[in-house]
Amino acid sequence: MKLPVGVVGFRGYAGAELLRILERHPHVQPLLRSDIDDQDDASFRRAQGPSRLPCDPKTVRAEGAVLVFLATPQGVSMELTPAMLEAGARVVDLSAAFRFRNPETYTAWYNEPHTQPELLAEAVYGLPEYFRERIPAARLLANPGCYPTAANLAIRPLVEAGVVDRAAGIVCDAKSGISGAGRRPSLKTSFCEVTENFSAYSIFNHRHVPEVLGISGLEESEFSFTAQLLPLERGILETIYFRASGLASAEELLGIYEKQYAGEPFIRLYNPGHMPDLRGVARTNFCDIGVTLDAKTGRAMVVSAIDNLVKGAAGQAVQNMNLMLGRPETEGLL
Amino acid sequence: MKLPVGVVGFRGYAGAELLRILERHPHVQPLLRSDIDDQDDASFRRAQGPSRLPCDPKTVRAEGAVLVFLATPQGVSMELTPAMLEAGARVVDLSAAFRFRNPETYTAWYNEPHTQPELLAEAVYGLPEYFRERIPAARLLANPGCYPTAANLAIRPLVEAGVVDRAAGIVCDAKSGISGAGRRPSLKTSFCEVTENFSAYSIFNHRHVPEVLGISGLEESEFSFTAQLLPLERGILETIYFRASGLASAEELLGIYEKQYAGEPFIRLYNPGHMPDLRGVARTNFCDIGVTLDAKTGRAMVVSAIDNLVKGAAGQAVQNMNLMLGRPETEGLL
Amino acid sequence: MKLPVGVVGFRGYAGAELLRILERHPHVQPLLRSDIDDQDDASFRRAQGPSRLPCDPKTVRAEGAVLVFLATPQGVSMELTPAMLEAGARVVDLSAAFRFRNPETYTAWYNEPHTQPELLAEAVYGLPEYFRERIPAARLLANPGCYPTAANLAIRPLVEAGVVDRAAGIVCDAKSGISGAGRRPSLKTSFCEVTENFSAYSIFNHRHVPEVLGISGLEESEFSFTAQLLPLERGILETIYFRASGLASAEELLGIYEKQYAGEPFIRLYNPGHMPDLRGVARTNFCDIGVTLDAKTGRAMVVSAIDNLVKGAAGQAVQNMNLMLGRPETEGLL
Amino acid sequence: MKLPVGVVGFRGYAGAELLRILERHPHVQPLLRSDIDDQDDASFRRAQGPSRLPCDPKTVRAEGAVLVFLATPQGVSMELTPAMLEAGARVVDLSAAFRFRNPETYTAWYNEPHTQPELLAEAVYGLPEYFRERIPAARLLANPGCYPTAANLAIRPLVEAGVVDRAAGIVCDAKSGISGAGRRPSLKTSFCEVTENFSAYSIFNHRHVPEVLGISGLEESEFSFTAQLLPLERGILETIYFRASGLASAEELLGIYEKQYAGEPFIRLYNPGHMPDLRGVARTNFCDIGVTLDAKTGRAMVVSAIDNLVKGAAGQAVQNMNLMLGRPETEGLL
Repeated sequence: MKLPVGVVGFRGYAGAELLRILERHPHVQPLLRSDIDDQDDASFRRAQGPSRLPCDPKTVRAEGAVLVFLATPQGVSMELTPAMLEAGARVVDLSAAFRFRNPETYTAWYNEPHTQPELLAEAVYGLPEYFRERIPAARLLANPGCYPTAANLAIRPLVEAGVVDRAAGIVCDAKSGISGAGRRPSLKTSFCEVTENFSAYSIFNHRHVPEVLGISGLEESEFSFTAQLLPLERGILETIYFRASGLASAEELLGIYEKQYAGEPFIRLYNPGHMPDLRGVARTNFCDIGVTLDAKTGRAMVVSAIDNLVKGAAGQAVQNMNLMLGRPETEGLL
Repeated sequence: MKLPVGVVGFRGYAGAELLRILERHPHVQPLLRSDIDDQDDASFRRAQGPSRLPCDPKTVRAEGAVLVFLATPQGVSMELTPAMLEAGARVVDLSAAFRFRNPETYTAWYNEPHTQPELLAEAVYGLPEYFRERIPAARLLANPGCYPTAANLAIRPLVEAGVVDRAAGIVCDAKSGISGAGRRPSLKTSFCEVTENFSAYSIFNHRHVPEVLGISGLEESEFSFTAQLLPLERGILETIYFRASGLASAEELLGIYEKQYAGEPFIRLYNPGHMPDLRGVARTNFCDIGVTLDAKTGRAMVVSAIDNLVKGAAGQAVQNMNLMLGRPETEGLL
Repeated sequence: MKLPVGVVGFRGYAGAELLRILERHPHVQPLLRSDIDDQDDASFRRAQGPSRLPCDPKTVRAEGAVLVFLATPQGVSMELTPAMLEAGARVVDLSAAFRFRNPETYTAWYNEPHTQPELLAEAVYGLPEYFRERIPAARLLANPGCYPTAANLAIRPLVEAGVVDRAAGIVCDAKSGISGAGRRPSLKTSFCEVTENFSAYSIFNHRHVPEVLGISGLEESEFSFTAQLLPLERGILETIYFRASGLASAEELLGIYEKQYAGEPFIRLYNPGHMPDLRGVARTNFCDIGVTLDAKTGRAMVVSAIDNLVKGAAGQAVQNMNLMLGRPETEGLL
Repeated sequence: MKLPVGVVGFRGYAGAELLRILERHPHVQPLLRSDIDDQDDASFRRAQGPSRLPCDPKTVRAEGAVLVFLATPQGVSMELTPAMLEAGARVVDLSAAFRFRNPETYTAWYNEPHTQPELLAEAVYGLPEYFRERIPAARLLANPGCYPTAANLAIRPLVEAGVVDRAAGIVCDAKSGISGAGRRPSLKTSFCEVTENFSAYSIFNHRHVPEVLGISGLEESEFSFTAQLLPLERGILETIYFRASGLASAEELLGIYEKQYAGEPFIRLYNPGHMPDLRGVARTNFCDIGVTLDAKTGRAMVVSAIDNLVKGAAGQAVQNMNLMLGRPETEGLL
């Protein structure tokens, strides 16, 4: 018999992707709960199996859900999490609510006070490639943001290896599919505004910047990040530039990643001369990384690609759930 | 009565765009000539007006064309140009054949010898914003490449103003619509490979790099350029990063462009806080430029956007033609 | 000096297209008026030239506008039209408000009473290919709907020629780009819902059906119409099926159109074996028509293609304006 | 241990989809074989697991493959099939080679002689919803075409129920994503020709017509079929019109399908008022069907939607394989 897990907020694109993955997972089955009290709309009419009820933490727990996914806005997550934990359920939160140690970091970038600062200390940041040993015991797991997942997996090994000329800094030119902007209708995500278009929308001040700084070890003055919208549904590709010191070849640059990610099930490295693309990671939990180096001048470039809804959200959440429940890390994800 | 001008190579996307513009131009009318001896295909069946004949420089001249556009590959342009000039026609060449002073630059980046090196000295590089005074008398005009047009219009003012930290260099992350890859069918430009996809295809070694270096005044070691394919038809957007020295605000950065481009009919500047997008330049001859500066740390970013087939090819060619024929520079282009 | 014409409702896609056309028109210049009292949003920041003011019919007239375009919802059109006419301006209304003789037809299909029934008698239906002689004197012109324009231009000649087996009826399978659904954000027109998707949304009961019946001469029982959304910005293509009687070949079927539309500046006919496509009509005021006939069995098919924003809305409105102002019918439209 | 099955022709879109499905199938594992002698190209670089060798029927059999999929052009299928059968392997052929009883039908529509007419008698047409009992024993299985799968599942129940006015005939307006045109680069499938475009390409004479006639029971004179290309990757939606006799309501029309398809695992019916769309069937083996009826006039419309690469090719092939190998019919397909 499958283990019930709660899913609150299944209507957004990350929540729908989470459902898609959980419905094929051999070990768990989703219990749907809505954070808003509304009726089913037509585009979800096909997801008929699981019952969908208003979210009540006590009931969710009483129905046997030892773990609950919150695919809700950060405000809703801050409100629901304490009650879920109190009812005895573990929480995997896909919002930004619990990603920072320091509530002031949250306030500075999200322009609102943090209402549950005491929970920040125990929250575990769910990037398995770096925090795998702390995830199994987590009661509250903060699932990473989409842009930071692609950025940190590419940048942290470089910083740790000490090959970045930090005075010149790192440029991260990031591009995301439209699903990253959420499901709520807006002119910005309307078909006729998006198709045949491309534009930058957050330059140097995107809310995901502090997540990259915190994990990668860069200072804000060293990191130039721009987010841009691609006219496609899903995928994030980040083109990362830096001045390398002490590297003689692209192979040597690649070697840093090979050493860091040996045995990692969801990191794929490309040989010099080849580069990841978005179709290669679409609907997968992989992060694909490729490198270039002009050894003569030290100019280096790294490409990091993920599916923003999978490794950037729902897939990584299930990867974390697997670790929390003692299941094989890749279960339901290959 | 309209003045006949020749158009050789009207089947490619730049050639077709050139036709579209010339057909509405009040002063000239196109005489179509094919560089290949083939029959009309279905997708050009609607362009029925002008006669389409094999290209013979003497005949073209005899029919009254004082000016001929070559929208042909560089090899064909090198072959046709001397005969055109000899027949008394002036040439606007859209290929890379005559863009460099030095034949060795051509050979180094295009991997083939230059067969008409003696013509390089007289060729005028047709970027009106910088070489307007030399264009009217040009007999052979080298129309700039698409990526270099967007890059040079954004970068040269910065280099001239001395605000770039050249040790840190300039990063130019360039994205182009698929029409930039040409009309010849290939797997790389097939719909099912391109849609829902995004990828880098030329990193640091794109053939357009020397054109940027030559005009902007940068050294190769200072310029990191990556070309990437967007899943859309037309448009180039370049996101340009550098470390600024001596700038106190985004307004000051914008002021460099305002001073440089005062009165320019095809440059549009955006106020700080706004950024160009591709729909804003589609089917226009404008180059739109927007800026950002983090004054505290000196991190700067400039966005430059054009339609690769218009300001990046056919539109700029007509702008140059207008100057060569003594017509108003914007005629047929607004 | 150019003649001022008013444009109310310039923010929707049809209104924006109308502006684009009028800005290049040699004889008139647009005076923008908003039907709602709001501020400029970013996506209209480039349309800076003409002043944009709240709409007041008396002022519009006082500023010299002898003609006003209403690109407004039908309710707003019904409200503004009487005051405009009273102030002495002629009206070209792009909504459905004045397309029917009978107010009950309006009420039956639009589910609301008609508030200006007395104006219906004088309104002229602006399909120039059929009502060209009545348009010049019109004080109130009802600009046709997009689907009906493509349908009537293809179907009316067949009905008049008597070649349709009316017991079997006519099937019109219509496909429209997303701009036809308007600019107001909705889940139905969000990029992630539309891309890689296709669906029928109005089967047999689309509001445009009575416009086709009224002009083509078909009965409702003879006409099966389905509207479907294509994942593209602009264009309508209708695939029209019927059982032909008395036709021996596709050439004979084509002959019906050749006779009907001889000299028409905006109708283009395709030779048998070729068919229109949407790229061929995009950003043009043409209606392209192609035909097929299986003479042995009488199965016939006609394709009719237009740009829904041009011949289906703004372009046809300018064509009508040209006729109303005594200008050449194609002025500003080729 | 998984059972090896051969896959010849894994480079096309149907073959790649077949691989994607088989790699997740719990019972079998693919042995890749190429029908052409070439090297791996970049876009398949990620499919690294299974070895890829030139196709030799004897070796394939010797390696334990009791069943081989041919995702090859019909000419290659006609050539490879006899040797495969002789070597003792069962064949699931995705081409049109063995779909007709009569070699003359093949010749008439495919313009070439059939080289293996003696195999046509034993070939089983693999539409499980109608021929489920004959599939388990099949040695040679002809996997249905994409358009015919969607058409026959919608039309055959209507013909059998006798509710179609056959004098008026059936119109099937079919739309397909670009992957249906195959992977070989051509102008017709180039991104810049396809995006923002829509067109009909085979009117009344598509090669799939005889497959519909043969299975549905219609005569050619009763069936008007047009194939059209949608600017999207995958999916077929067919809008089917007819004059109904003896039906009082849409519910009654739906009842025909409910009775026919009760218990079918891959047919989903929509309640009146709702219609299938392509996103609902993408990457699934479902055929979704919706209905409309105007009871007063008898005008009826049915929508049938599938993923052309899944239920229209690879998924149905695996469904057939499951039946042939005695596995659960839905294994690996939900």
